[in-house]
Amino acid sequence: MQKKLSGPTLRRLPRYYRIVCEHCERGEEYIRSCEIACKLDVDETQVRKDISAINYSGKPKIGFNTGEFKAHLENYLDLLNTKKAFVIGVGNLGLALAKYNGFSKYGLDIVALFDNDPQKVGIKIGTKEVFPISRLSEMIKQEQVKIIVLAIPGEEAQKMANIAVESGVKAIWNFAPVNIEVPEGIIVSNQDLAADFVVLSMKIAEQ
Amino acid sequence: MQKKLSGPTLRRLPRYYRIVCEHCERGEEYIRSCEIACKLDVDETQVRKDISAINYSGKPKIGFNTGEFKAHLENYLDLLNTKKAFVIGVGNLGLALAKYNGFSKYGLDIVALFDNDPQKVGIKIGTKEVFPISRLSEMIKQEQVKIIVLAIPGEEAQKMANIAVESGVKAIWNFAPVNIEVPEGIIVSNQDLAADFVVLSMKIAEQ
Repeated sequence: MQKKLSGPTLRRLPRYYRIVCEHCERGEEYIRSCEIACKLDVDETQVRKDISAINYSGKPKIGFNTGEFKAHLENYLDLLNTKKAFVIGVGNLGLALAKYNGFSKYGLDIVALFDNDPQKVGIKIGTKEVFPISRLSEMIKQEQVKIIVLAIPGEEAQKMANIAVESGVKAIWNFAPVNIEVPEGIIVSNQDLAADFVVLSMKIAEQ
Repeated sequence: MQKKLSGPTLRRLPRYYRIVCEHCERGEEYIRSCEIACKLDVDETQVRKDISAINYSGKPKIGFNTGEFKAHLENYLDLLNTKKAFVIGVGNLGLALAKYNGFSKYGLDIVALFDNDPQKVGIKIGTKEVFPISRLSEMIKQEQVKIIVLAIPGEEAQKMANIAVESGVKAIWNFAPVNIEVPEGIIVSNQDLAADFVVLSMKIAEQ
């Protein structure tokens, strides 16, 4: 990994990647920073800065070669190395995440789900089986899974995080609306949908 | 609405709010910026800056009065004014959003859902009914809904956005993994879960 990027830059890169992929698929050989800026409603200077921050550059007045730029982003964002993950909680959100077919392109492979409901244990979502929580620790070790996705109610989240971390998980993608405490060195990414809504709502108020 | 905050500051405020609420509920009268920082794994200086940016201040060495701080955030983030929204798409994600009971605290009221599947039309998720897409435009006008949540596959997203915007919607919360084009003045907030995963994955790589 190269120099550390700012959070906002890092958030934009996968979106650039999506647009570059779309252009590639349509057989367009070049893409210009203004096209990316326009599609994402981001300032063009910002797009140029972000791309320069990942040590990539285009041809003046022509733009970025889509195939090369795509490959550069794949390499930089490590998209081609698949990372296995377990989803904990087979409610609507867990199912939505397990069924979502856009993750594999970004290197995320949800390999199994976990739930305590006996009616859910054993069912298959595509190729992904639902296992009981009692097997979580053993399977994290066995499959050497480093990422878990928490799609469970708040009160259970900390307990599941503890089991996962003790079993070797390094990162937790937390959709439960609670703060999770983890030892130093473990990454927690909080996907707080209500907070995301507030940001949207404030933008409306600014209008 | 006061001066415009940076995106990252705005994203952190609802998380501060959640922590302040938790402290309030436990009957704790004061909260210190270091406690907030520690719980959220954010730098304490940043927490102080954010809180100062919304024109709030605590008592030296004692901290912020939880009740007052909670009220200040509610006012600043306009959490007490409920905003009605429609969810389009009654798949697992749409259901997860409709069932999620943490939104009301942040002023979001999902009042109805829309789907073209005749098997879904008419069902109720709690108090929320599922209507056919053919009624979307009429109901946006009737209920004066300003926000729609797109929880549908990519190919349908632009079409639904067009109908919604033509009917008076001002903001689109887009969970479909595509870029949506809207007229000037309409807000689109892209909840690109795959991109969020990439950010998490890059943080692991940085370790």
